[in-house]
Amino acid sequence: MNAPEQHFSSAPPLPAALIDALRAEFAERCSTALAVREQHGRDESIFDVPPPQAVVFAESEAEVARVVALCAEHRVPVIPYGAGSSLEGHLLAVRGGVSLDVSRMNRILRIDAEDLTVTVQPGVTRKALNEALRHEGLFFPIDPGADASLGGMAATRASGTNAVRYGTMRENVLGLRFVSANGEVVRTGSRAKKSSAGYDLTRLLIGSEGTLGVITELTVKVHPLPEAVSAAVCFFPSIDAAVRTAMQIIQIGVPIARCELLDANAIKAVNAHDKLGLKEAPMLLMEFHGSEAGVAEQAATVQDVAADHGGEAFEWATTPEARTRLWTARHHAYFSALQTRPGCRALTTDTCVPISRLAENINASVTEVEAAGLPYFIVGHVGDGNFHMAYLLDPHLPEELATAERLSAQMVARAIALEGTCTGEHGIGLHKQGFLLDETGPEAVAVMRSVKAALDPLGILNPGKIFPL
Amino acid sequence: MNAPEQHFSSAPPLPAALIDALRAEFAERCSTALAVREQHGRDESIFDVPPPQAVVFAESEAEVARVVALCAEHRVPVIPYGAGSSLEGHLLAVRGGVSLDVSRMNRILRIDAEDLTVTVQPGVTRKALNEALRHEGLFFPIDPGADASLGGMAATRASGTNAVRYGTMRENVLGLRFVSANGEVVRTGSRAKKSSAGYDLTRLLIGSEGTLGVITELTVKVHPLPEAVSAAVCFFPSIDAAVRTAMQIIQIGVPIARCELLDANAIKAVNAHDKLGLKEAPMLLMEFHGSEAGVAEQAATVQDVAADHGGEAFEWATTPEARTRLWTARHHAYFSALQTRPGCRALTTDTCVPISRLAENINASVTEVEAAGLPYFIVGHVGDGNFHMAYLLDPHLPEELATAERLSAQMVARAIALEGTCTGEHGIGLHKQGFLLDETGPEAVAVMRSVKAALDPLGILNPGKIFPL
Repeated sequence: MNAPEQHFSSAPPLPAALIDALRAEFAERCSTALAVREQHGRDESIFDVPPPQAVVFAESEAEVARVVALCAEHRVPVIPYGAGSSLEGHLLAVRGGVSLDVSRMNRILRIDAEDLTVTVQPGVTRKALNEALRHEGLFFPIDPGADASLGGMAATRASGTNAVRYGTMRENVLGLRFVSANGEVVRTGSRAKKSSAGYDLTRLLIGSEGTLGVITELTVKVHPLPEAVSAAVCFFPSIDAAVRTAMQIIQIGVPIARCELLDANAIKAVNAHDKLGLKEAPMLLMEFHGSEAGVAEQAATVQDVAADHGGEAFEWATTPEARTRLWTARHHAYFSALQTRPGCRALTTDTCVPISRLAENINASVTEVEAAGLPYFIVGHVGDGNFHMAYLLDPHLPEELATAERLSAQMVARAIALEGTCTGEHGIGLHKQGFLLDETGPEAVAVMRSVKAALDPLGILNPGKIFPL
Repeated sequence: MNAPEQHFSSAPPLPAALIDALRAEFAERCSTALAVREQHGRDESIFDVPPPQAVVFAESEAEVARVVALCAEHRVPVIPYGAGSSLEGHLLAVRGGVSLDVSRMNRILRIDAEDLTVTVQPGVTRKALNEALRHEGLFFPIDPGADASLGGMAATRASGTNAVRYGTMRENVLGLRFVSANGEVVRTGSRAKKSSAGYDLTRLLIGSEGTLGVITELTVKVHPLPEAVSAAVCFFPSIDAAVRTAMQIIQIGVPIARCELLDANAIKAVNAHDKLGLKEAPMLLMEFHGSEAGVAEQAATVQDVAADHGGEAFEWATTPEARTRLWTARHHAYFSALQTRPGCRALTTDTCVPISRLAENINASVTEVEAAGLPYFIVGHVGDGNFHMAYLLDPHLPEELATAERLSAQMVARAIALEGTCTGEHGIGLHKQGFLLDETGPEAVAVMRSVKAALDPLGILNPGKIFPL
């Protein structure tokens, strides 16, 4: 599939002088092998774009700066690459250029346990970070599902299952270092919890999708492991009942740590994949963090709310093993569902609305997809008003793609009409550029473009993302 | 006092055509009377700058846009004005121009209780908002002390006493409308709790101190009034002991809602002013929000921690009246202290450091001011690592000002060396432009300047703030 209104095949060959310089400096860490380029030219999106023309594996900030400076000199696009788990085509080389892979910059530089901060290189993944933190009694809450890199998570303003309580990358990054379009290193923020010192360049880079700079270091907040953790699943007679339960939990102020919806299709898929034996009905998967007494109190409140909406078969998991089983269901939903229709690909949408509009938004989306007859499943960070609809397509049937695009566009338009956003956590990338305009209006997009032009006057940083070329 | 490296007296007269146009459109709501101009040319800072040349009282977004467009046409500075409670010279007319007073734009436009959001005009003050919210069982937590306007609080990235639990304006503003330098209205954000839709223009405007746009509307998060609230004071043998108690409370993860330090000087002042009869020793003033059981649990934990540091005379306040008495002490500290030295003015500094460095930062600052012999007091949002030192100066004694500036510079330099920030919540304004450079380095300030040039190419929006002219 081609992204809307984009044309991808016109990138000129890389200048020989650039290739020579990269090879001279990076040796075998600069690759033009097709397999390496293809691996860096594909993410979880469904776009079919030629791969980048070269891949450079940087191992330090100075090397990142050098690659960007060389690309600037030759007016060649640079596309930062972390774990390759983005969903909206962020890392695709729509104008050719160099994929700058920072996955080897994976050192945890500092753990300041007494300040609840850590400083990492951008290639550190969330699982690696949590592995290192566990011994300190700390954890990093942002969990987008995939084992994404922290640099990539910052670049897409990722969030995921714990955001309802702990916030998103927006709230959890204290400071950054990044390489600007002219190859300079810029520091933003500090290790202080708050600051009023000038423009918030940290937040400007978070969510900029590689178009304003290449993130080379992050200082993030971490949290003490809670004294008590308890997870529970509860099944509902309808999606509506499950969603209304989540809405009420938030509205009465329960400090729930995770509040996830899986529809019956998602549960069928994970049951088949992981033999979990879960009831195949709309389910809320919840987690509570706090003191022993606090967790018990939250759980009791939530059980009352769920009962009012017909929730039943509460199943509790207080041991780490039992919790892992439940979270396995959530985290395997995407890949399990792909296996329910061999050869299919998923077109996933991601909207977020004010919590009071969530049931309306999901119910209408279900009605539409059922009428269209396309296989689908739903998972959602419903405590945040955020959910994902995944349509399972046969890539050889263009009419299925057309149907999915139509349904997705209806869903996004509805989310915007309900005062929400076209993307809660996946970003704009290639796919949602028109929706961004619908959501914010041309004035805001014009301001964004002027920021882009100011910070990247040559347009070499991940061109064609967020805005059309 | 003149701000460092600034020269203020060279503003040319306003063009007659501009004055004529403003008078034609705004009639008596455009004033050039000296008293009105002087009232708009002075904030809580100690700078002595000529007042703006005209003041316009806008009553709608369209009027704000019209004033900005007229000023752009004539290349005349526009300085947004809310409640006039800023502390670093933000609203001073260092290049002359028009003070754009939005205090009459004080309507609460929407309360969406079920989404925990409200939408307000920029002149709504935090007290007015909380008055309106109380009947809904909701509150807006950001409390910088002064009854500031929400537009001004966003523009300075304000925080205050509740930030330790509820965050700052950075975390609590979901979306904005602002008038850009060319007089266009720009929308940012939505009512969704999170979004990955493009650059974070909301956060770019927050903390921009009126230099990137004039905020005309804000949608902010509000919170359910907690089921239980309890406040307590506790007295310590030393500032160090009080600060170390606060540090440990944060490090073990107590979700304390407020955690404030007052030194003995501050307490002497409020005792004299409000006849409070508080023990004149370093004091923590704390507040706990939650369920009845949760509040009791937090309180017990905190009492144990305080006892380990020699804390004594815990005094609890669970009724609203008793809490008001305690918070009166905190909120009157500044003005009470000014009265302890008749005719004095305060030079207030505002640094924030990682929590583990807070005791070191405060102890050294106390040692220095005691050695210098200048009257002072300390209050601090110590749960955030943030504190304010106020030096009480005789404005007729230049040597006192010089001493205070020297002490303040030492304190800020130390905060930066301790990986903190030169301002936790007051902003850069006129006074801290050099410190901003020290903190972030020239590369980051250059990026900020390029953003400023992109969004305000004529340099008419509050010129001379954040960066030197």
